[in-house]
Amino acid sequence: MFFHKQELQFKSSPSKPDAVLAKRMQEILGGQYGEITVAMQYGFQSWNAHEPGKYRDLLYGIGAEEFGHVEMIAIMIAQLLEKAPIEQSEAAIKADPVLGAVVGGTDIQQAIVAGAGARPVDSNGNPWQGSYITASGNMLADFTANANAEMQGRVQVARLYNMTDDPGVRDMLSFLLARDTMHQNQWIAAANELRAEGKEDLPVPSNFPLNKEERDVAYQYLNFSDGAAASEGSWASGPTPDGKGEFTYHEGPTTSVPMPPPTVPDERFYGTTPLPNTMEKVAGVVKDTFSKK
Amino acid sequence: MFFHKQELQFKSSPSKPDAVLAKRMQEILGGQYGEITVAMQYGFQSWNAHEPGKYRDLLYGIGAEEFGHVEMIAIMIAQLLEKAPIEQSEAAIKADPVLGAVVGGTDIQQAIVAGAGARPVDSNGNPWQGSYITASGNMLADFTANANAEMQGRVQVARLYNMTDDPGVRDMLSFLLARDTMHQNQWIAAANELRAEGKEDLPVPSNFPLNKEERDVAYQYLNFSDGAAASEGSWASGPTPDGKGEFTYHEGPTTSVPMPPPTVPDERFYGTTPLPNTMEKVAGVVKDTFSKK
Amino acid sequence: MFFHKQELQFKSSPSKPDAVLAKRMQEILGGQYGEITVAMQYGFQSWNAHEPGKYRDLLYGIGAEEFGHVEMIAIMIAQLLEKAPIEQSEAAIKADPVLGAVVGGTDIQQAIVAGAGARPVDSNGNPWQGSYITASGNMLADFTANANAEMQGRVQVARLYNMTDDPGVRDMLSFLLARDTMHQNQWIAAANELRAEGKEDLPVPSNFPLNKEERDVAYQYLNFSDGAAASEGSWASGPTPDGKGEFTYHEGPTTSVPMPPPTVPDERFYGTTPLPNTMEKVAGVVKDTFSKK
Amino acid sequence: MFFHKQELQFKSSPSKPDAVLAKRMQEILGGQYGEITVAMQYGFQSWNAHEPGKYRDLLYGIGAEEFGHVEMIAIMIAQLLEKAPIEQSEAAIKADPVLGAVVGGTDIQQAIVAGAGARPVDSNGNPWQGSYITASGNMLADFTANANAEMQGRVQVARLYNMTDDPGVRDMLSFLLARDTMHQNQWIAAANELRAEGKEDLPVPSNFPLNKEERDVAYQYLNFSDGAAASEGSWASGPTPDGKGEFTYHEGPTTSVPMPPPTVPDERFYGTTPLPNTMEKVAGVVKDTFSKK
Amino acid sequence: MFFHKQELQFKSSPSKPDAVLAKRMQEILGGQYGEITVAMQYGFQSWNAHEPGKYRDLLYGIGAEEFGHVEMIAIMIAQLLEKAPIEQSEAAIKADPVLGAVVGGTDIQQAIVAGAGARPVDSNGNPWQGSYITASGNMLADFTANANAEMQGRVQVARLYNMTDDPGVRDMLSFLLARDTMHQNQWIAAANELRAEGKEDLPVPSNFPLNKEERDVAYQYLNFSDGAAASEGSWASGPTPDGKGEFTYHEGPTTSVPMPPPTVPDERFYGTTPLPNTMEKVAGVVKDTFSKK
Amino acid sequence: MFFHKQELQFKSSPSKPDAVLAKRMQEILGGQYGEITVAMQYGFQSWNAHEPGKYRDLLYGIGAEEFGHVEMIAIMIAQLLEKAPIEQSEAAIKADPVLGAVVGGTDIQQAIVAGAGARPVDSNGNPWQGSYITASGNMLADFTANANAEMQGRVQVARLYNMTDDPGVRDMLSFLLARDTMHQNQWIAAANELRAEGKEDLPVPSNFPLNKEERDVAYQYLNFSDGAAASEGSWASGPTPDGKGEFTYHEGPTTSVPMPPPTVPDERFYGTTPLPNTMEKVAGVVKDTFSKK
Repeated sequence: MFFHKQELQFKSSPSKPDAVLAKRMQEILGGQYGEITVAMQYGFQSWNAHEPGKYRDLLYGIGAEEFGHVEMIAIMIAQLLEKAPIEQSEAAIKADPVLGAVVGGTDIQQAIVAGAGARPVDSNGNPWQGSYITASGNMLADFTANANAEMQGRVQVARLYNMTDDPGVRDMLSFLLARDTMHQNQWIAAANELRAEGKEDLPVPSNFPLNKEERDVAYQYLNFSDGAAASEGSWASGPTPDGKGEFTYHEGPTTSVPMPPPTVPDERFYGTTPLPNTMEKVAGVVKDTFSKK
Repeated sequence: MFFHKQELQFKSSPSKPDAVLAKRMQEILGGQYGEITVAMQYGFQSWNAHEPGKYRDLLYGIGAEEFGHVEMIAIMIAQLLEKAPIEQSEAAIKADPVLGAVVGGTDIQQAIVAGAGARPVDSNGNPWQGSYITASGNMLADFTANANAEMQGRVQVARLYNMTDDPGVRDMLSFLLARDTMHQNQWIAAANELRAEGKEDLPVPSNFPLNKEERDVAYQYLNFSDGAAASEGSWASGPTPDGKGEFTYHEGPTTSVPMPPPTVPDERFYGTTPLPNTMEKVAGVVKDTFSKK
Repeated sequence: MFFHKQELQFKSSPSKPDAVLAKRMQEILGGQYGEITVAMQYGFQSWNAHEPGKYRDLLYGIGAEEFGHVEMIAIMIAQLLEKAPIEQSEAAIKADPVLGAVVGGTDIQQAIVAGAGARPVDSNGNPWQGSYITASGNMLADFTANANAEMQGRVQVARLYNMTDDPGVRDMLSFLLARDTMHQNQWIAAANELRAEGKEDLPVPSNFPLNKEERDVAYQYLNFSDGAAASEGSWASGPTPDGKGEFTYHEGPTTSVPMPPPTVPDERFYGTTPLPNTMEKVAGVVKDTFSKK
Repeated sequence: MFFHKQELQFKSSPSKPDAVLAKRMQEILGGQYGEITVAMQYGFQSWNAHEPGKYRDLLYGIGAEEFGHVEMIAIMIAQLLEKAPIEQSEAAIKADPVLGAVVGGTDIQQAIVAGAGARPVDSNGNPWQGSYITASGNMLADFTANANAEMQGRVQVARLYNMTDDPGVRDMLSFLLARDTMHQNQWIAAANELRAEGKEDLPVPSNFPLNKEERDVAYQYLNFSDGAAASEGSWASGPTPDGKGEFTYHEGPTTSVPMPPPTVPDERFYGTTPLPNTMEKVAGVVKDTFSKK
Repeated sequence: MFFHKQELQFKSSPSKPDAVLAKRMQEILGGQYGEITVAMQYGFQSWNAHEPGKYRDLLYGIGAEEFGHVEMIAIMIAQLLEKAPIEQSEAAIKADPVLGAVVGGTDIQQAIVAGAGARPVDSNGNPWQGSYITASGNMLADFTANANAEMQGRVQVARLYNMTDDPGVRDMLSFLLARDTMHQNQWIAAANELRAEGKEDLPVPSNFPLNKEERDVAYQYLNFSDGAAASEGSWASGPTPDGKGEFTYHEGPTTSVPMPPPTVPDERFYGTTPLPNTMEKVAGVVKDTFSKK
Repeated sequence: MFFHKQELQFKSSPSKPDAVLAKRMQEILGGQYGEITVAMQYGFQSWNAHEPGKYRDLLYGIGAEEFGHVEMIAIMIAQLLEKAPIEQSEAAIKADPVLGAVVGGTDIQQAIVAGAGARPVDSNGNPWQGSYITASGNMLADFTANANAEMQGRVQVARLYNMTDDPGVRDMLSFLLARDTMHQNQWIAAANELRAEGKEDLPVPSNFPLNKEERDVAYQYLNFSDGAAASEGSWASGPTPDGKGEFTYHEGPTTSVPMPPPTVPDERFYGTTPLPNTMEKVAGVVKDTFSKK
């Protein structure tokens, strides 16, 4: 169960309205790596978790904080829009290029659809969608996804920081940056702990029997481009991070097979098939024709 | 530039047709973590890369291999569908429950739309979309995304492995599992190398000035749920993975502010506003009314 | 069957071109509550209707009008775009900030994709989609959906009215506002008539047996936030609109159960499972290993 | 801020696993009218609200409950999937048609992607998306949207009730049905209260000046179909629900204008234009040709 | 304006219910090449047309027929679903594998969401979307798109024909097949007429000045694969269909340039940049740090 | 298999940065008819092809070139963005309207999400999606789709050409225009060759037995609009392009049937049904009530 308290975790009020910034802020609310994504991602990971205890508690604990961040940003956006201009005729824009400059950079649906409010979309107006989240039930994979989400999120907040000089907005972004720092660290620590405790290991999933994979190519770097510098990295020679092999480097593939012959499905799929098939095709048509309509 | 060779990297022919499996295989072709995703993700990361040399070469080198995997799986699916049944009347299904069992588990668009062919969709028929990929320009974040993608992908292939006993399909999956093992290892090695070379560090992005984030809360675990076990992990005490702090644990938030007052935008957004505003609203309507229609 | 007549229901010509407004108008053409939505919504409701007569005739009658509104707005947009600028080089924009102001506020796909034409998208360029419509077969629910659609639509048209001072556009919007007034009234009247005739009632669906719902909580307002003013409304005490109960007010839930234990699925889903399961997991791997590859 | 408690509001455990039902349950979790929709809808309405007090408190109060329902259903789905079969080879299906019957009716991504877990999608596997929600800032419109959402939701839950005989699932559905009953009643009561208090009225938005709409057609029922029974309803004669007019009935439109002439945009959009324009087009090409390449 | 008549263009009633077929029929209603697509495509082409007369009349004339086909198929689907089973418990399915076979092949949202009705989606449940249509304003391009749409549509209807033996459904499909035959022929005739009248020609758009394109490569077949048979076609030698050149054949590219150097954007995008840039990056951070927070 | 070479097919460097143009260029990268579409379309057509030899080789040969065009445009976009402004505060915009003009016309996600990089989206920011492509297995239909794609693509490139005066960008567009000219010609030649060789013919699919379609209406132009000029075209009289009939012209339909009666599904779908059904509905409720809860 979730309980709501009519407080915010941190200051979330702009120093002045700014409809252009209100559009940009949508990215960290409803974008691929916005707060709705992490809130829902940690939620689904907790609901799909397979063991009680510290890992699931961690998911619940951070997840609920993120729902509060959704609210914090939505409310910031509404305030940025409080004085959004509604008079936007072309004449007005032409008379006042500054208005035009502003109008061109706003999210028009925040005005027409939400009446100067926040929306569950990204900074280009694409609706948030469930396919942004990851929850596989394998915690080492999922915590890596979480670390990535927090990294991408912090990169985006840092970019936004440089797009405004509003002290109120910068305060809130400073707070979010710090929480992203924390959460990056937490997911990395948790991923390490999973490995240290033997709950999961590399390669993920570690309990898939290795003898069922084609081990000959499991540590070969096959370079399908002509960039020779690729051989200089630690990914092309030396021990592998999973501790189970040695990297080797190869120009192109080490295995290959001829292209299988094209398929020839039932002629009633009406595809284009090779000449030898023509007679059968005719036969099929005839058969079709004589069968009861 | 890309050049195509009419060979496959590995055996990719089923031992027998299986339209039910052909649907399931779509996940690793056109799903969130399918081969189209990694091919395009590494492609866009290379095109947006900001330095020449080994890291970009690595992206090009693996990216081109993944386009070949897209082809390999598409061709496998077409072969699995070669004998897909087209006669699917309810009468036929009722007469032969086995047919019904099979038909119920197939992707009907593989038949109606593609004529027994592969499609750029996932195992539920959702079209692949550009929002599946990640390419931020920050390589530590992106290589973490890549490690996650290879982990999720290997988990899915491993699950598929247990959904079939077809030796031909299992052979190809064995190969893909091994390549996923390799690529997981490579992205982790590359992420480590970025840090070792000082190109990037935790927290990502590492060159955002730390004094601009709210450092007081940068290493606090704020547990917004009532699961006390969350305090037992290495993410709640001890040094942080970024080497710059010490984790502390707190029940709930350490900061809070009152909810900001609701916004009151221009009355011509026609929102519902508080009573004190009524007079203004009336005035607004009057003003509207007398202005030229 | 539908028949088309090359006339419009009302004046639909702008007084002057305005590419900025042409973008905004897309909302009421191809947005969530645009004319395509209501046309298709009333269409599907009529095709899925379960009784002949006045209600279905009403759906057919209004639905066909709405298809005409789709056309009316599309043609207005095309006219607004007739003089849309195609020369949009950055140099041109810098030389003439007014051009820049205008260009920044246009829908670039109206130019590149449609050649100065209307598109089946909203004002942010999101394509119209089938998931915007509602057609459940239950007319009281659906007519409520229709009333909402007409209300949201009229709010949006009213907002647009204030974004332009073009007399031609305002004329058409005046007409649409009036039709939205009519249709709001009609769906509310029709919903009332359904209840008066005993065809459907609150709670919807009214013919689901009430003794199968958990009646103890059927009229309790459970406030999961800390806003005490919520108890002051007519939704917290007094008789309920369905005439079958009395509202009561409660801080938080009146019922609760412990969280169910986490699930432990087949180990071959390769999820992360609790320690007691480790032995089974090892056993599973061993079993996998020895089974025929 | 949101706080999480590791309890559920009501019993949420199936009596036995049922992967077929787990797919169906996705509709009320991640569908157009599932719990994610209402939770997010009430959330955005509260964050965009323009006045403090009972209406906003109501939105916060119900919204937080709905987030708990999201969790409740997700956990139910995970339990229904706990024994989901992973062995699904065609051979296995053919050997056991019952397995086939089951497999055909499951959501294969719950297995391959989530490892026997819930997903943020509907019962056909479409990801939840932000465009499902409504939050316009106009409370009478939005509360009507909310009433509709609760009606559609209750209809769907009632249908699901008849698709299972599992007592545990039916218990939870009984609880959800009752809460939907409550919330339908609440939004209708709140909508009535808005009107009673004069905060908003029909037609929505009521503070748009009526003299700016084309009043002549504001209460005319224009029947664009040939179903004469449409004239029999209370929507075709008598007073209108907004108390401001009288319905009248008309076969077809009462107004019309000729189709405006087609547009002729800049020839460099390369559209197909009328013959009289050919000379200009040639001129345009010539002009293009001689301008600097 | 559109007017509706409560008749259908042809028999559209199944001989018996068939919920499995009802799912398949969704493809030709709401799929990429279903009737909604062609109705809306011809509609937008007519509204965006740039000349009056026969071509626009053709678009209007066929477009309105297609809206009637949308209705015809929706009504057929509703009838196929009239006896759709609602009792679908796993126990029921296990007791009656035939029920399971049927249930596995149905569209569950037709039941849960539409109450045994048609939906604006394809046969996999993906909502219809505006991005399916094409309306560029260039009639030769658009009529080619139309010819393709009718071809793809007829292929799909032909495949469906073989998936049922219901005489009523087959009758309707026979009618649709004939209309698709007609419309294929019409769009091809219209495309030819555009060329014959000199309104448009190959290459499309024909009035773009040819001296602005890189004519050296305008008729070269550059084979980027190793399939030598590609040189055998009429596309590799001889005159070109546009009458303006001669095809030539080449293995691989005839031009190439080195890869441009990677970009180095502003350091405050926090991307990973080359070593020489490190000093600047440090400087940037220092600059950031000293600038007012 | 695909192999990558670190060269581009043609010059692809702008003469100067231009973030406004960088947004527009996304259309031909990730739009409905952008390079990702044609690359993937030809790829899937080749993988689903049913015969070896020249046609499949053609698909492979052009497909691989198009993947190189994806890269070429992505790299151009990254270069156009190299100097994209990150300082975009409203104050800055107001101080410098030119900045505002520029900012309003950029794709903000190129900055926030990609750090001044290209993205897999169109010029309005909609993600590329799998439903843009066509691959039916019927080559005459598919080659017509390909011809259309190349026509639409060339129209869009031609429009873009007029939106910039950057010589570097124009050079690359000149090259793409020429390749589009070539590919238009090739697909038309290939379509002709299919017919000449008797592999496929009009109407597509040609091997569906004509006696199974409703031949009476196969060549009738039924004009559902009131535009009489539609009868003047070659599509209304004379021989049909498929060589199998004569066009005839008709005002409106030549056939019609009464609307089928509405459906009455199981009462437990809780739809609104006619009065005669009320008793049954009551009975159903009673039955429900007495059955075990």
